[in-house]
Amino acid sequence: MKAAIITIGDEILIGQIVDTNSAFLAKALDRIGVEVSEMLSISDDKKHILDTFAQLQNKVDVVIVTGGLGPTKDDVTKKTFCEYFNDELVVNPEVLAHVTQLIEGFYKRPISQLNKDQALVPSTCTVLQNKMGTAPGMWMKKEDTVYISLPGVPYEMKYLVEEEIIPKIVREYKRPYIIHKTILTYGQGESLVAERIEHWENNLPEFIKLAYLPNPGRVRLRLTARGTDKEELEKAIESNVQSLDAIIHDIIVGYEENETIETVIGKLLSKENKTISTAESCTGGRIASLLSAVPGSSSYFKGSVVSYATEAKVNVLGVPQNLIDQFTVVSAEVASAMALSVKDLMKTDYALATTGNAGPSKGDSDAEIGTVFIALATPNGVIVEEFNFGQPREKVIDRASVKSLEILQKEILKIVQ
Amino acid sequence: MKAAIITIGDEILIGQIVDTNSAFLAKALDRIGVEVSEMLSISDDKKHILDTFAQLQNKVDVVIVTGGLGPTKDDVTKKTFCEYFNDELVVNPEVLAHVTQLIEGFYKRPISQLNKDQALVPSTCTVLQNKMGTAPGMWMKKEDTVYISLPGVPYEMKYLVEEEIIPKIVREYKRPYIIHKTILTYGQGESLVAERIEHWENNLPEFIKLAYLPNPGRVRLRLTARGTDKEELEKAIESNVQSLDAIIHDIIVGYEENETIETVIGKLLSKENKTISTAESCTGGRIASLLSAVPGSSSYFKGSVVSYATEAKVNVLGVPQNLIDQFTVVSAEVASAMALSVKDLMKTDYALATTGNAGPSKGDSDAEIGTVFIALATPNGVIVEEFNFGQPREKVIDRASVKSLEILQKEILKIVQ
Repeated sequence: MKAAIITIGDEILIGQIVDTNSAFLAKALDRIGVEVSEMLSISDDKKHILDTFAQLQNKVDVVIVTGGLGPTKDDVTKKTFCEYFNDELVVNPEVLAHVTQLIEGFYKRPISQLNKDQALVPSTCTVLQNKMGTAPGMWMKKEDTVYISLPGVPYEMKYLVEEEIIPKIVREYKRPYIIHKTILTYGQGESLVAERIEHWENNLPEFIKLAYLPNPGRVRLRLTARGTDKEELEKAIESNVQSLDAIIHDIIVGYEENETIETVIGKLLSKENKTISTAESCTGGRIASLLSAVPGSSSYFKGSVVSYATEAKVNVLGVPQNLIDQFTVVSAEVASAMALSVKDLMKTDYALATTGNAGPSKGDSDAEIGTVFIALATPNGVIVEEFNFGQPREKVIDRASVKSLEILQKEILKIVQ
Repeated sequence: MKAAIITIGDEILIGQIVDTNSAFLAKALDRIGVEVSEMLSISDDKKHILDTFAQLQNKVDVVIVTGGLGPTKDDVTKKTFCEYFNDELVVNPEVLAHVTQLIEGFYKRPISQLNKDQALVPSTCTVLQNKMGTAPGMWMKKEDTVYISLPGVPYEMKYLVEEEIIPKIVREYKRPYIIHKTILTYGQGESLVAERIEHWENNLPEFIKLAYLPNPGRVRLRLTARGTDKEELEKAIESNVQSLDAIIHDIIVGYEENETIETVIGKLLSKENKTISTAESCTGGRIASLLSAVPGSSSYFKGSVVSYATEAKVNVLGVPQNLIDQFTVVSAEVASAMALSVKDLMKTDYALATTGNAGPSKGDSDAEIGTVFIALATPNGVIVEEFNFGQPREKVIDRASVKSLEILQKEILKIVQ
């Protein structure tokens, strides 16, 4: 079963807002086995919408349109539906009662003609009552394709999708099973991962697709199985994930869809009852910010010293001035001293430290731009590594933060195993 | 002049990621007077891409395709370009040299066949060198339509758009003059701002459009003037911005397109030769991370103590334990003490402190979830405010960080004026 998603509105086409409605819809449809074959954003223009409808007619089973339902004159979705279905607008008494109740009863305002017009719908449509707002959803069928119109306001759209659209599709359509499995890997780039698993990938059965979702420092692999026999799909995914794990066990850190290295580290530290702190120079608090964004992190993340200025390294962390004079602030020696100091100061089991030069210009050091030293103090000592993360500044901060977490995760794994 | 934007990749169609590349591209094109008539997301499927190309042929001047250029098997864009243009892939020596330098010289790894294949491009294309990664951009023309292929990795895509695509379009196409002026406001919501400027907005000339770009805690107003007489446009924008400033002077913080409150603060602090530090509990280093992300911030941002655990507040910042016992960690008193301590510790002119309960569960305090105290120590004393930022956790951290910066900015303004 196939669907297309159309978003209507100029604010998306000039880049003023990012379309998040389509991703929400796609995820909801994917979960019930509906394949989204395309997403489109087009302007509030009747002819453009009609052309798009005609293109999709009988090519997909469902077309979902969001936006273009507000009370102002540049919202044209309803008129376009009437033209496409050769229908006319009539007042829907149920919607009118709801809109009147909302405006007069809840907002305590006199109802205007613009408000009342929200109750106009094509005479042959199935109305989807929108308890969250004034614009109703509409469901109309032409030959093999259903056209659904939804308001663009995210929480109204979400309400109608969850309460009306998804249950109605589940009742009325037969769909295949779709099973996804995500594998989160860290520390190797997309092409290196692809090379390592090439043979495995070539041997995947036809009904399982593999996708690579690369981010700086990490690659998410997604397996998707489609078919009619749910049990068979689950077994096939399971056995293929096992054989994948045997090949790249060293870089796999998690299997959950929304897992990140921060949540993986959080689970490991909680399980082992260990704590972490950070001393950050070039990452400027980013690592602390990533760690503390995880709910429940207060049980293992104790705190951080962002020693951005050299004085802060000396005065707050107690890094010896002569160490800085001898080796410069961007050095393995200073990174180690920072990690050991903050571990002491915050009384934690582990401590990460970063010092480097993120650019664009050189700071209190002659180190090449992009150079970063990462130190990790553990219960057994301290390890330091040197990196060059290139440019721009944003990328250096990003990659240094992610790499630090990766080093930490690998070390904690050693005590878990 | 018209453009279409196509994003390729299944991860968007199943809702796993939100497409932010299209909004970036749309904004960049809009700025130079190119109208985006549609955006599409389609799957990594050759036939689907070819059909879409054919539909857009001669209907738009430029088709920009992002994604589908990685080294792995699920990327098909290059092969599709070859088929559409009846061309074949050849090695581009310049790209090969760049990829080799990047892999062998920078990452210190032997180059693989997959890496080398990144240098394969259609023989007749204009190559756009990608200094930020291995996949080059491509520019090919068929009849009246140019097809441009860009990598999907956001910072690589952005680099090519800013350094190659936009300048090339500006050189090769005639477009109307478009002048934008952005006004950054802080502290009032979209509808309140809209009410205050309603009369002014209704009196804008026909050729000037106003857009609201709301974000938590701030609203960006964008004026866009379109026409053929550049001087007239500039004069009209200038006089309308002046009359706007007269109405909402109290909430305007800046006028530059890419300005954020962090960069505004950076300029003010640099100008006045003042310094800042932070002591963060519930914001977990986010404020430090925002401040230090600004290039050149090392001249005014000295550092931060992220005192996530109560012990860190006592041991590192020296907040008296009896103050915590008496008022709890989430209190105006503790926030003030944190701000004054870190100001002292980091020897700065200003210091921000946050303490609160971001949820989802209560921590070392009985304070209601969402409660945050923000303190700002200045050369003249300390001010504290209490907020409740609701839920979820992510929103509390976000809004507390933005509100802290807003309080800081307002205070620094006092000394500047």
